[in-house]
Amino acid sequence: MKSLPRIGITMGDPAGIGPELCLRALREPSILKICAPIIFGDLEALRKVGKAIGIKPSLKPIGLDEISVHQISSAVVQCGSLNVASLQPGKVSAQNGRASFDYIRESIRAACAGAIDAVVTAPVNKEALHKAGVPFPGHTEIFTALTKSKRSCMMLASKPLTVSMATTHIGYGDVPKTISVERILDVIELTHQTLRWIKKKEPRLAVCGLNPHAGENGLFGNREEERFIIPAIELARKKGIQITGPLPPDTAFVARYRKNFDAIICQYHDQGHIPFKMLAFDTGVNITIGLPIIRTSVDHGTAFDIAWRGIASPTSLYSAIRMAVKLHRGKINSLQTL
Amino acid sequence: MKSLPRIGITMGDPAGIGPELCLRALREPSILKICAPIIFGDLEALRKVGKAIGIKPSLKPIGLDEISVHQISSAVVQCGSLNVASLQPGKVSAQNGRASFDYIRESIRAACAGAIDAVVTAPVNKEALHKAGVPFPGHTEIFTALTKSKRSCMMLASKPLTVSMATTHIGYGDVPKTISVERILDVIELTHQTLRWIKKKEPRLAVCGLNPHAGENGLFGNREEERFIIPAIELARKKGIQITGPLPPDTAFVARYRKNFDAIICQYHDQGHIPFKMLAFDTGVNITIGLPIIRTSVDHGTAFDIAWRGIASPTSLYSAIRMAVKLHRGKINSLQTL
Repeated sequence: MKSLPRIGITMGDPAGIGPELCLRALREPSILKICAPIIFGDLEALRKVGKAIGIKPSLKPIGLDEISVHQISSAVVQCGSLNVASLQPGKVSAQNGRASFDYIRESIRAACAGAIDAVVTAPVNKEALHKAGVPFPGHTEIFTALTKSKRSCMMLASKPLTVSMATTHIGYGDVPKTISVERILDVIELTHQTLRWIKKKEPRLAVCGLNPHAGENGLFGNREEERFIIPAIELARKKGIQITGPLPPDTAFVARYRKNFDAIICQYHDQGHIPFKMLAFDTGVNITIGLPIIRTSVDHGTAFDIAWRGIASPTSLYSAIRMAVKLHRGKINSLQTL
Repeated sequence: MKSLPRIGITMGDPAGIGPELCLRALREPSILKICAPIIFGDLEALRKVGKAIGIKPSLKPIGLDEISVHQISSAVVQCGSLNVASLQPGKVSAQNGRASFDYIRESIRAACAGAIDAVVTAPVNKEALHKAGVPFPGHTEIFTALTKSKRSCMMLASKPLTVSMATTHIGYGDVPKTISVERILDVIELTHQTLRWIKKKEPRLAVCGLNPHAGENGLFGNREEERFIIPAIELARKKGIQITGPLPPDTAFVARYRKNFDAIICQYHDQGHIPFKMLAFDTGVNITIGLPIIRTSVDHGTAFDIAWRGIASPTSLYSAIRMAVKLHRGKINSLQTL
């Protein structure tokens, strides 16, 4: 029997919808068929949330060294020391921020040590992280720092559209001084590699321009297309990557054009997020590419307003788990064919 | 009998698809039912194109002073002096650039004098205009300059989405230094007025932020939301305008959010054009708002590759004509209720 990939799932902010989504994943047949899910979180908190939503979970605490390649079900790696008695749904707290960070840190440690094959993250609350003195604004930054990654980027994947981003959470005006030939080439290469894992074939990529009409031959903007984007495209082509661009950003995402590409590389947050959310709101998967480990994430927040009521949809978490499994298999295959 | 609105239609670049679209509009029953179309162009060129596509038009040359409020059919205001013998489809030429400019100038003159009620423009070729020494990059700039308008802006209207733009054809990096409280307030006011004409009721408006997540309370960017956008929204509210914002740009265009608004005001070209083209490619209408006259336009180019073959779709021109009629009626009604 082939062993299933071991997928670590962080519980997210205990006061959010993360715990109940984890409980659902642990008993979802379509998930258990493709992977061994291992929760990085808090046993007592999971039991408390289970009680609130009417699920009685049979959870088994395991140590990092006990994770084997054989299927484990209902396994929880206990991290941190949450005071569960005072835990309430929908409240921002420093203790919960600290706990969410502990789950992430332990999952990264396990993945880097090879004890698990990928990490899927449930949502954290940025304000709670901040209150706990965690010096990172969000998941992507934590993963990049703790894995000591030199280059990484955000990819949003969905059936109708996949985009990856040269820049993300910076001001609109900081984009022109942040993009460079090196950065755009990095993002092209990371996107290319990841798409090969997912599609199992040579992907068709495109890159958007920065300016209206992709600058219209230098008519608009500060020639960012000529200075950064076109040179990066040419270097990528020299490395054998199939790539088109720079595309005028306003036509790139029209159905008849985007269907020619497996992924579109975007220069800034909203260039990619506007079309992606229009096409795949609540169904997309967020992937941090370029890390030494595989990391995918749900595409929604902690939803404090509906936490612990049993009504949160696990669809996005399941998509993120499936994508993690796909990336793991693709990575293994590509290593085997080296 | 109520007189029909007199809609001037510029023929556009003679080598493009403009002439054949004009010929189709002149014999389209649904158009003749709602307006009296008057072509600003060249009689001989129209006959030559008619011959090429198998339409024998019965055209009647009229002078600007002959346009009456009664229905006129197949009327052409002869402008300029095109050498039609040398005219060929799909070729960029200075003579055609000059001629397209003449049609626009005459239509503006007629509209400003009250001889027609609106101008609808067929596409021009920017390179041809440039070759002819016309000192404007496109329609919007010509209309703004020749009507001596102090404030105007581009609005893109369609059934699923209507957007108007605080900035358009400038470089990505020039946007933060171009937007201001005054400019955003102007665009809000112009959008509000135009939507009242179209919807015949108080419109629900929204404004997008500039930065990712609309700046997240100053976390990203140079506080453009706090410095420009929020003050403009507050001033608009003081004038009695219903308006929401600044919205995070990446969620503003998701179906469940955008349906709450009759129009969304965007800070830059691609913020509005990316979602608009995804939702209304080839079906939208481009309106220059804030002019003393009504001007709408097709949402496509000269299509030199298919010109004079009779296969160009007149759908966008018909939409632009219908919108011009709607705007004219709305303007008249609003003047009557003053």
